[in-house]
Amino acid sequence: MSDVLDLTRELISRASVTPEDSGCQALIAERLNRVGFNIEHLRFGDVDNLWATQGNGGPVLVLLGHTDVVPPGPLDAWTSDPFTPEIRDGILFGRGAADMKGSVAAFVIALEQFVAAHPDHVGTVALLLTSDEEGDAIDGVRKVADVFRERGERIDWCITGEPSSMSVLGDLVRVGRRGSLSARLTVKGVQGHVAYPDKAKNPIHHALPALAELAARQWDAGYETFPPTSLQITDVHAGNHVNNVIPGTLDVLFNLRYNPHWGAARLEAECEAILRKHGLDFDIHWHRSGEPFYTPEGQLRAAAREVLAHFAGHAPEESTGGGTSDARFIAPLGAECIEVGPVNASIHKVDENVSVADLDALPDLYLGLIERLLSKESST
Amino acid sequence: MSDVLDLTRELISRASVTPEDSGCQALIAERLNRVGFNIEHLRFGDVDNLWATQGNGGPVLVLLGHTDVVPPGPLDAWTSDPFTPEIRDGILFGRGAADMKGSVAAFVIALEQFVAAHPDHVGTVALLLTSDEEGDAIDGVRKVADVFRERGERIDWCITGEPSSMSVLGDLVRVGRRGSLSARLTVKGVQGHVAYPDKAKNPIHHALPALAELAARQWDAGYETFPPTSLQITDVHAGNHVNNVIPGTLDVLFNLRYNPHWGAARLEAECEAILRKHGLDFDIHWHRSGEPFYTPEGQLRAAAREVLAHFAGHAPEESTGGGTSDARFIAPLGAECIEVGPVNASIHKVDENVSVADLDALPDLYLGLIERLLSKESST
Repeated sequence: MSDVLDLTRELISRASVTPEDSGCQALIAERLNRVGFNIEHLRFGDVDNLWATQGNGGPVLVLLGHTDVVPPGPLDAWTSDPFTPEIRDGILFGRGAADMKGSVAAFVIALEQFVAAHPDHVGTVALLLTSDEEGDAIDGVRKVADVFRERGERIDWCITGEPSSMSVLGDLVRVGRRGSLSARLTVKGVQGHVAYPDKAKNPIHHALPALAELAARQWDAGYETFPPTSLQITDVHAGNHVNNVIPGTLDVLFNLRYNPHWGAARLEAECEAILRKHGLDFDIHWHRSGEPFYTPEGQLRAAAREVLAHFAGHAPEESTGGGTSDARFIAPLGAECIEVGPVNASIHKVDENVSVADLDALPDLYLGLIERLLSKESST
Repeated sequence: MSDVLDLTRELISRASVTPEDSGCQALIAERLNRVGFNIEHLRFGDVDNLWATQGNGGPVLVLLGHTDVVPPGPLDAWTSDPFTPEIRDGILFGRGAADMKGSVAAFVIALEQFVAAHPDHVGTVALLLTSDEEGDAIDGVRKVADVFRERGERIDWCITGEPSSMSVLGDLVRVGRRGSLSARLTVKGVQGHVAYPDKAKNPIHHALPALAELAARQWDAGYETFPPTSLQITDVHAGNHVNNVIPGTLDVLFNLRYNPHWGAARLEAECEAILRKHGLDFDIHWHRSGEPFYTPEGQLRAAAREVLAHFAGHAPEESTGGGTSDARFIAPLGAECIEVGPVNASIHKVDENVSVADLDALPDLYLGLIERLLSKESST
């Protein structure tokens, strides 16, 4: 049994359903402390966060991950217990195997090997873990980033271990993510009987042209390798399922997935201008769930391309697609961010799994990245 | 105590909450049979309908009413028991006093007086009562009209006793009603994640331009004294209150109140053409709850204008406003219809009432109308 497989199994057996950590971080802190890392536990509310650093000054490379997992869902749908790791035909099954206890274990092994092999490496190497990536994501990396901002903590590069690979380990590196911005809109009218529309003000009728304009707008044609910004209305509710009452209000939810051409404040202003232009009487509440980030060509992407090609057998796709991750909180600190991890086909599903061969390769992949960024040879 | 007051009190004391008749029609049938009316009881499901006729051939004048009442609501909100008629300060209180047991009692008295005074009157005078006007209105006059249609029953004029007056008895005669047409529309899309709009088809976005066109359309500029046809969207529902899922369907309810410029079939075709023009994938279910009716200038309106002016002290307003009534089922048989009854301020409310003076005048009002239409002198 390999070291990374042992540690992954140990982590899976701790049923750390978000926002629980179930002792994962203590275990990791003990191992890293043993090889010279400074350990800081940052607990906010119910959430555990671990900040482990080794070395001095810059450049600072952070490996970013989470110890929480999504709930297993119906247990009898699983072939084996989600929190009892089991290998069948060279595949390790268990909740978190791919998202992302395998990556976290590989981080730990890679860090141990790196500091042993490079006692005089340049800069600082660090591990940041949270137990609140799959849940509300409020007391996790979002709050840690606030602490870092106050301290003036410098981060040059951040590698998130999210499962980015599509079919072969290393076939995709994520070099950016779209931002996500949500709105809760209430359009106000005046309730009344359908027989007397002049005495009422139908909020649906008033809102339709404005919503049609929001939905039809072409926000941009894309940005670098990002897809175009998209607004989607996900929810509309008005009325009480009767056909003789004009409702008094219309409630709408919509979400924008946007590329770095935009910032949240500008998008909010544009949307509100459209609503005002149509003369709507409205309330709107915005939720900024993450600004976009984009890592341009440079040392980090070059290292990733070289290392991943070695594992995948071809140059990786450098993608800006997909949803959100905790990198959204680190990027605004000025860090270049990428995301590299195992194949994501099974994540959030029953019988989540990772191939043992990929898991065994993963520490070498992360070690290769760290060495290209922080070994003495790399800085010359 | 007057005859009409006695009979109204007797009817109120029978708690005929829709669709109950509670013996009201049997009582009336017995009285009218005694003065020479032919009696037919048409019971469908839980609903009693009474068809009483006197005379021969045409013209046929029908007095139309209902013996059912709306529920009283909270009993302790009433000053006196809703089913124990009570006179206070010249006002008769009780559920149904105005809507429309007072009118029904006045119909009976007027019919008794008419056939006594005019044994050789021309044509046929008739009374049609149902116990299902305030409820589903399915097994009431709607079904009786089907029977009449099958029989080839001829009706020239119909006077409904609905409380039409605003502040003084006879100040308004209703000479038409708008039609009502309801639609239940489902717009079909493809569910998906907001991060991948290309893989989904947002039914809200697809529907917005079509709904905006439906809502903005000017259907007509009114018809005779009718207000313009109006379409109101009363209900929109899509989504499960989350901001990251594009819903698979959008459900919409809308209602049209339309004047005789339109028929239901043409409106349905126009609406569906708009939905198709916008390329929507949709299901739609229509409910025709009543075609419009309109009684143009003629003998019936002239008689009403003359008689009502005598009671109100001025010419009545000849109105086509308001909701629907059972006249909607009789008008399509080819009958000219009007609605005349007491002041409607208290209907469907607690402490429903009618003034004793108005109640005492009501048989004379209806008698005046009958005489102008069916007495020998009127036909010369």
